[in-house]
Amino acid sequence: MSKKIMILPGDGIGPEIVEQAVAVLEAADRKFNLDLSFEQGLIGGASIDAHGEPLTDAQLEAAGQCDAVLLGAVGGPKWDQLEREIRPEKGLLKIRSKLGLYANLRPAILYPQLAEASSLKPEVVSGLDILIVRELTGGIYFGEPRGIRTLESGEKQGFNTYVYSESEIERIARTAFEAAQKRGGKLCSVDKANVLEVTVLWREVLDRLAPEYPDVELSHMYVDNAAMQLVRAPKQFDVMVTGNMFGDILSDAAAMLTGSIGMLPSASLNETGFGLYEPCHGSAPDIAGQGIANPLATILSAAMMLRYSLDMGEAADAIEAAVSKVLDQGLRTADIYTEGSKKVSTAEMGAAVVAAF
Amino acid sequence: MSKKIMILPGDGIGPEIVEQAVAVLEAADRKFNLDLSFEQGLIGGASIDAHGEPLTDAQLEAAGQCDAVLLGAVGGPKWDQLEREIRPEKGLLKIRSKLGLYANLRPAILYPQLAEASSLKPEVVSGLDILIVRELTGGIYFGEPRGIRTLESGEKQGFNTYVYSESEIERIARTAFEAAQKRGGKLCSVDKANVLEVTVLWREVLDRLAPEYPDVELSHMYVDNAAMQLVRAPKQFDVMVTGNMFGDILSDAAAMLTGSIGMLPSASLNETGFGLYEPCHGSAPDIAGQGIANPLATILSAAMMLRYSLDMGEAADAIEAAVSKVLDQGLRTADIYTEGSKKVSTAEMGAAVVAAF
Ligand SMILES: CC(C)[C@H](C(=O)O)[C@@H](O)C(=O)O
Ligand SMILES: CC(C)[C@H](C(=O)O)[C@@H](O)C(=O)O
Repeated sequence: MSKKIMILPGDGIGPEIVEQAVAVLEAADRKFNLDLSFEQGLIGGASIDAHGEPLTDAQLEAAGQCDAVLLGAVGGPKWDQLEREIRPEKGLLKIRSKLGLYANLRPAILYPQLAEASSLKPEVVSGLDILIVRELTGGIYFGEPRGIRTLESGEKQGFNTYVYSESEIERIARTAFEAAQKRGGKLCSVDKANVLEVTVLWREVLDRLAPEYPDVELSHMYVDNAAMQLVRAPKQFDVMVTGNMFGDILSDAAAMLTGSIGMLPSASLNETGFGLYEPCHGSAPDIAGQGIANPLATILSAAMMLRYSLDMGEAADAIEAAVSKVLDQGLRTADIYTEGSKKVSTAEMGAAVVAAF
Repeated sequence: MSKKIMILPGDGIGPEIVEQAVAVLEAADRKFNLDLSFEQGLIGGASIDAHGEPLTDAQLEAAGQCDAVLLGAVGGPKWDQLEREIRPEKGLLKIRSKLGLYANLRPAILYPQLAEASSLKPEVVSGLDILIVRELTGGIYFGEPRGIRTLESGEKQGFNTYVYSESEIERIARTAFEAAQKRGGKLCSVDKANVLEVTVLWREVLDRLAPEYPDVELSHMYVDNAAMQLVRAPKQFDVMVTGNMFGDILSDAAAMLTGSIGMLPSASLNETGFGLYEPCHGSAPDIAGQGIANPLATILSAAMMLRYSLDMGEAADAIEAAVSKVLDQGLRTADIYTEGSKKVSTAEMGAAVVAAF
């Protein structure tokens, strides 16, 4: 049965990198007879320009009817002056929330071929392989009440609500426990339970579930310490699980430990395994249209999609192996270029991955 | 006129390191005729053991009547099972809040003598000198409503409120602008204005004040990007300003970039210049009582106290010069020890600083 993939290139370098990822998927389709089909759609600034809003309801519905979504990136200075409600990011928040994509998986892996790119000492990061599991549809990102009000004194006050219910915590915790079972068996839950009540509940739920996963070693860490330990000794971590806001911060810090954020994919899944796949990096408007962006994070996101949402693990393995091969060949886009390697364009990198199959 | 300093050693390594800082202050007193006097008090676990609560009102009042407070550190496993309301950390939050210590200054400085200690490559961190200005008495740490409630469905829900008023933002912003004027003239304000309304107001207030500080170059950065940039290229920053929660996370990450958190002091000031001074590191219960803790962060906190709260800049300079001298002499406590240097105890390090005057 044919699997339909919604392609949402978005803004900035989005269209360029997604084009290469689709080419790689087509190659995988030819080789493994996957019977994939693609539908193109709009999100972010591209949708604002066409429809006046960052994600139309029609687009949302069409995405939900596909088997998976592949996204480039959203946002750019062109839309920065718009009201917050119709800014490109709102499209991303809307699709995550409305499709129930609560489980955000963000691997931070150091490719041995790119070890030099890290700003950390080689011995601190060599072999790094962390998976950050971030809750993506709750917490302070979506909590109510929220807004800016005027106090009686006449001054303005801004407010947001950080809120989690037990069931929201439980489902993301299970995702993380299960991921740890399939990896190194270690799960570190990150909270601020010495200050925030909402994370006291978070910790309680994790502790309650732990006996169901006797093969996973659960630990807890305060978020400030976690930020510190990621810098000091990141290899102590296997899987980390945390809420939306802390996850946003820590996953970006962890990604940057590798020095090559242009390499890192992500998956956002709902309860049924349906998912949205996108690179960890942003839309990089400063280099958009120049054909120099690194398409590998998007290509690796496509591989994650095959594995997690489409049950095509063999094809996913093949894509990942092809990426490793082009790195072995010394091919590098500008962001990961070092002396002695061969600098290639976005399109050349995509073509090299296709050729490496 | 005599200046009175409240000494709150606290828990873990607190008493050991504070003892050395007091010895250094006494030496400075002798040399510069500062007319200092000291009063000893209890906070954290030490106060829980004596009075059943982490900070008594009498202790709070006594501290407020001094000219400054020097604190060691609070907390430890002994008190971890207590109800959250009477845990050691609550003493710290109470003294910050009740004495109005809204301006938390956290320098992250790489001492050239300790360049090797960092987990980052030398070229990325050499010469690092960042000042993080963290709002300390507002935001989600103190916002109401907060708690854990049971929903109609029977499941529990945890909630906290992230709230700032214009005046709270304005006063910490002014602290940061003024600090930037005295340093490199660059201020980076960190928020999450693409998602959180409270930080939209934060950004507005910073922008409104900027024209009053034409000699300061103001920029804005999202917190996820800030965490990334601290890892990637921390020397791009001069002064950073942010709210309580983001400041907690980013200041610890920034401190760890130096690799020697045992060296970093902090100040927490109120509107009148009264302040509480403490090392950035914690109570390190694992090494408490062994006489091996690094007292330099506390000694440098004492120097900050002389400079910021007691208007004794000359004595502060002398302490900082003495610290630099003992580092030049190759003296190192265990946490900063590297081959070829001379390992010393807490007391030996303190004595060396006194001797270096
Ligand atoms: C663009 C922004 C709303 C988003 C987030 O904060 O979740 C991004 O930083 C991310 O991590 O995917
Ligand atoms: C102990 C804890 C409450 C405190 C905080 O979160 O403020 C500490 O982490 C700090 O940064 O001083």
